[in-house]
Amino acid sequence: MKLKFTKMQGLGNDFVVIDGISQSVSLSLEQVRLLADRHFGIGCDQVLLVEKAIGDADFRYRIFNADGGEVEQCGNGARCFVRYVHEHGIIHKNEIRVETLSGLITPRLEANGEVSVNMGVPRFEPSEIPFVAEARALSYLLDIEDRQIEASVISMGNPHAVRIIQNIEQAPVRSEGALIECHPRFPKRVNVGYMQIINRNYIKLRVYERGAGETLACGTGACAAVVAGISQNLLEANVTVSTRGGELLIRWDGDNQPVWMTGPAVTVFQGEISL
Amino acid sequence: MKLKFTKMQGLGNDFVVIDGISQSVSLSLEQVRLLADRHFGIGCDQVLLVEKAIGDADFRYRIFNADGGEVEQCGNGARCFVRYVHEHGIIHKNEIRVETLSGLITPRLEANGEVSVNMGVPRFEPSEIPFVAEARALSYLLDIEDRQIEASVISMGNPHAVRIIQNIEQAPVRSEGALIECHPRFPKRVNVGYMQIINRNYIKLRVYERGAGETLACGTGACAAVVAGISQNLLEANVTVSTRGGELLIRWDGDNQPVWMTGPAVTVFQGEISL
Repeated sequence: MKLKFTKMQGLGNDFVVIDGISQSVSLSLEQVRLLADRHFGIGCDQVLLVEKAIGDADFRYRIFNADGGEVEQCGNGARCFVRYVHEHGIIHKNEIRVETLSGLITPRLEANGEVSVNMGVPRFEPSEIPFVAEARALSYLLDIEDRQIEASVISMGNPHAVRIIQNIEQAPVRSEGALIECHPRFPKRVNVGYMQIINRNYIKLRVYERGAGETLACGTGACAAVVAGISQNLLEANVTVSTRGGELLIRWDGDNQPVWMTGPAVTVFQGEISL
Repeated sequence: MKLKFTKMQGLGNDFVVIDGISQSVSLSLEQVRLLADRHFGIGCDQVLLVEKAIGDADFRYRIFNADGGEVEQCGNGARCFVRYVHEHGIIHKNEIRVETLSGLITPRLEANGEVSVNMGVPRFEPSEIPFVAEARALSYLLDIEDRQIEASVISMGNPHAVRIIQNIEQAPVRSEGALIECHPRFPKRVNVGYMQIINRNYIKLRVYERGAGETLACGTGACAAVVAGISQNLLEANVTVSTRGGELLIRWDGDNQPVWMTGPAVTVFQGEISL
């Protein structure tokens, strides 16, 4: 089978996007793995498949990890998806209703070509994160080796610990991040963010992702960091987050409100592969 | 500028191949780096540029590393190049004369679609490798930490140390390989191959590449291992080499003869990128 595809990236998080509407596409686990393989295939973090909606949404959007497994959410991927359906003339509306494995999402194409995605409502209850603590708090002390460190702990659908530091370049992302990731108070492990606050609307961030190590940019990590800063009255409602892969704009209006993430989505090249 | 390209691989060593004959192509260092970037660009180990010959060869073939620098030789790349000019109908001869930075090469397309490349004459003189030793020998003892190990030492244009082991799975490629790579008797460091001899025509091989660590397959490493085995009368003149990335056939007819390497070259996909 010949398959047309588009390679896209958002902050260096990269995707093979496939139109499953105009092409009939049914990918096996092995085919997804081959598409994602950076030496023997096209190479990407995830494969995104655009399909007709089953319900009354505009599209169905499916996400496959490089190991072939289907997953629920990816903020950087959702941005690329929206850019894709516009650039390919599949839709002309700026706000799109999309079916995903984790429910309906309504991403929005902005005037400058960037895309905003509703990342859901942050959760602070320790049992929901999950995190072992007696009561909810703005930050917690964790015992790491022979010392105590302070971190905020938030769920953005996945668990995050956020540390505030003075100098992003010297953040112990790998060494300390790996220790916090596997700390016994996080039964499902945790992503670890290191945030340097430049001013009330601008932070620098590096994230140690659960199971992956430091990455170019972590969308949910940016949300968690900004929510942690706003909760402690260190940041305003709109914050630009500078990561190694580029900048994201995060907006959060407080408790029980969703977090909005706005950022770039870039088409890298078009291709065709025989499977 | 819009650039058409073909993504190819030989044993997992992967290339972006660009036709600089039908397209006018002049790439800056930054553009080569972008093409090779696996997250923000297409992604490859090397960019191969096919150009008109300056002299009377059929083509000129240029190789750029992912860092943008132009380099001399790449056996896996040469195989892909030959496959490329045939598949694109640029040439119909099976034996091609190609200008490279390191001189004229004459790769050959085989009936089964694989490609044979003349990898040059192996060199054994310690000073030519370079290797610190009083005299040429079939193998040498090296002091590593508190023990001595035995290795053959050969140049295939680049330096190789070859170790014979009983079980390829248990080869200490990373740990011992890294120590040998930086051993003071190799002033320009060394690639380290671990060879398990299955029979006189078949070996398994893993290679620790200088500056890169263990790779899927190293063409010059396969040549060096087979030459080391033939020199010690452990192998015949034709040997199949099984690597993590696939199989190569190596032929060597003895002193002062060149080594021929035959192996696969695969087109993965076609694409177009705007630079």
